[in-house]
Amino acid sequence: MHFVIHRDRFVHSVQHVTKAVSSRTTVPILTGIKIVATNEGVTLTGSDSDISIESFIPVEEDDKEFVKIVEEGSIVLQAKFFAEIVKKLPEEQIEIIVQDQFATTLRSGSSVFNLNGLDPEEYPRLPQIEEENIIRLPQDLLRNIIRQTSFAVSTQETRPVLTGVNFTIENSELTCTATDSHRLAMRKAIVETNNENLSFENVVIPGKSLTELSKILEESDSLIDLVVTESQILFKLKNLLFFSRLLDGKYPVTKNMIPTHSKTDFVIKTKPFLQTLERALLLSREGKNNVVNLKTLENGVVEITSITPEVGKVTEKVQSMEANGEDLRISFNGKNVIDALKVIECDEIHIVFTGAMSPFVIRPTDNDHSLHLFSPVRTY
Amino acid sequence: MHFVIHRDRFVHSVQHVTKAVSSRTTVPILTGIKIVATNEGVTLTGSDSDISIESFIPVEEDDKEFVKIVEEGSIVLQAKFFAEIVKKLPEEQIEIIVQDQFATTLRSGSSVFNLNGLDPEEYPRLPQIEEENIIRLPQDLLRNIIRQTSFAVSTQETRPVLTGVNFTIENSELTCTATDSHRLAMRKAIVETNNENLSFENVVIPGKSLTELSKILEESDSLIDLVVTESQILFKLKNLLFFSRLLDGKYPVTKNMIPTHSKTDFVIKTKPFLQTLERALLLSREGKNNVVNLKTLENGVVEITSITPEVGKVTEKVQSMEANGEDLRISFNGKNVIDALKVIECDEIHIVFTGAMSPFVIRPTDNDHSLHLFSPVRTY
Repeated sequence: MHFVIHRDRFVHSVQHVTKAVSSRTTVPILTGIKIVATNEGVTLTGSDSDISIESFIPVEEDDKEFVKIVEEGSIVLQAKFFAEIVKKLPEEQIEIIVQDQFATTLRSGSSVFNLNGLDPEEYPRLPQIEEENIIRLPQDLLRNIIRQTSFAVSTQETRPVLTGVNFTIENSELTCTATDSHRLAMRKAIVETNNENLSFENVVIPGKSLTELSKILEESDSLIDLVVTESQILFKLKNLLFFSRLLDGKYPVTKNMIPTHSKTDFVIKTKPFLQTLERALLLSREGKNNVVNLKTLENGVVEITSITPEVGKVTEKVQSMEANGEDLRISFNGKNVIDALKVIECDEIHIVFTGAMSPFVIRPTDNDHSLHLFSPVRTY
Repeated sequence: MHFVIHRDRFVHSVQHVTKAVSSRTTVPILTGIKIVATNEGVTLTGSDSDISIESFIPVEEDDKEFVKIVEEGSIVLQAKFFAEIVKKLPEEQIEIIVQDQFATTLRSGSSVFNLNGLDPEEYPRLPQIEEENIIRLPQDLLRNIIRQTSFAVSTQETRPVLTGVNFTIENSELTCTATDSHRLAMRKAIVETNNENLSFENVVIPGKSLTELSKILEESDSLIDLVVTESQILFKLKNLLFFSRLLDGKYPVTKNMIPTHSKTDFVIKTKPFLQTLERALLLSREGKNNVVNLKTLENGVVEITSITPEVGKVTEKVQSMEANGEDLRISFNGKNVIDALKVIECDEIHIVFTGAMSPFVIRPTDNDHSLHLFSPVRTY
């Protein structure tokens, strides 16, 4: 193998595939990045067997030459060193040559690295994906969906299926749901599909995969394809493939959890309410339970309090814009509500309660494609 | 105690004094910030007994009113909560009222915090400083001196006196020295003194104190006074006092360590040489010894190499601008030299060697008030 490559473009690709590489793998070759040079260009692969990322650098694109292939071939190089080395090389071009025994030379200006490579034949093959079920949506929409749901996945391994985000599709409507059983975040979107009858229910993507993917997604409306199979999902971008395994197990049916009636509800400005809760959390955090209390007063005023006996107490009144229904006193996990308010883009929210001991719902007032559900906390 | 204070000014002062507060103190009251209100203004104090910081907010300054004192008094409040609370308060003004039993109310807009205070009488007194020995220099110069020396202090407690920076003064020349016994950083400066015969040798300021101080110092040429006593140093800024204890023990005499002759020397561009060493360090870091090898070649070319057998090898040639003396092969701790090159502001450095087994010196070419000394590493 022997090629000369444009450094910045190469560094960009190396950084992408490195996101999939874990130093704590049980498969030694997976600590490396696989590099394959063909006459079309250079392909890089990183994987921790849960996530695999493949990035392609074409020989030429938009009339710009990125790679000069001298000899085709392949090699695996230690990701940890390789990613740092290429970033620090001095010149605009990098020359990479593989000799006998996988001995690899990197040359840039007067800087010469001789690295011990690994046998590329030992590197596992990427999953073979049947392109039968395809969803297509803009990158920035997918990024938003991830941001507005994945924070709510469970971090505990007691119910592994809850550490992922559930993707379902019916009538071209994608519904993404995350819950840790105390709170739930749900986001819907209309998407393109390759088949208008496409429908699935139990696709659960690990939260960690989505977090890594969203670091790669750009704030652009260029399209991304999601190819769904039984055990894998493939995200297809231009020159980049992102594979993730799916989680096993049956995701709980969440549709029926969402209350449809209301006993008390109010509309309130998102940001001031968020800041009030953040101040209340300063004290409730100490008790480690994050309990914040809400009480409705007269004329649509809402009182937020929290207390840690050793430290003190905070009380704050907020004026709601519209309030209906019964008087209410309720306690909840303030941190969970704050997490949700942070991802809501609308200036106003509508909160609907169904009693002090029942779940309550927060929705932005400007659309009905997202929803947040919370269990109250019992206080004594 | 009862006063109303301008929030941003108050937050600024709270952040300063919080730098001295440690959560791991054996004296419980030191987890708090002491607040004293008099008719002149509000004084805040934080301390971990090694460092104490006092910040004063005058009632009025430059025709601007910062505080309205309703009733004089004092209180101690938990630093951890207090600092976060004041930062998050909603309005421009904060009202603070102490009632019975040190119960304290903070009010800002509709937000009301009731905090349990502590008895201010239990808070230790700050050290009494005799203002006999005073040095005066610009803030930004002191900041530079700290940046160019304190990185070289020892991090090991085996010789505690080496964890500090040695300040000596003679004929109005301040000399600051830090060494961990493998490398040494030295910086001189002409300063004002209150007494032209002022001279001291064994003032050793803990590196940690200087690091905290330099976060408070501003990029300004306004003057700062250093008041030196037997066991304490006081840094006096407008509205701020910073006290640090001095380290016990005799600081080693370093003057004689600095070689005065030369066997090999060259002048080289600082930044390219730094980048070459950073690339070499990528591989030597793995072996944890950070060993980098330097070899002089013909025509003033310098070759830098490093090797980690399991990973690989890096070789790079750099052209020096001027080279004299014998051929040389030497190995050294690359990280130590990098640390020094990062704080040198001059574009060119002069390196003087006295043989492969003897210490070598790096100096900027544009001044003779700073110097870096390194021991070589023996390689086999």
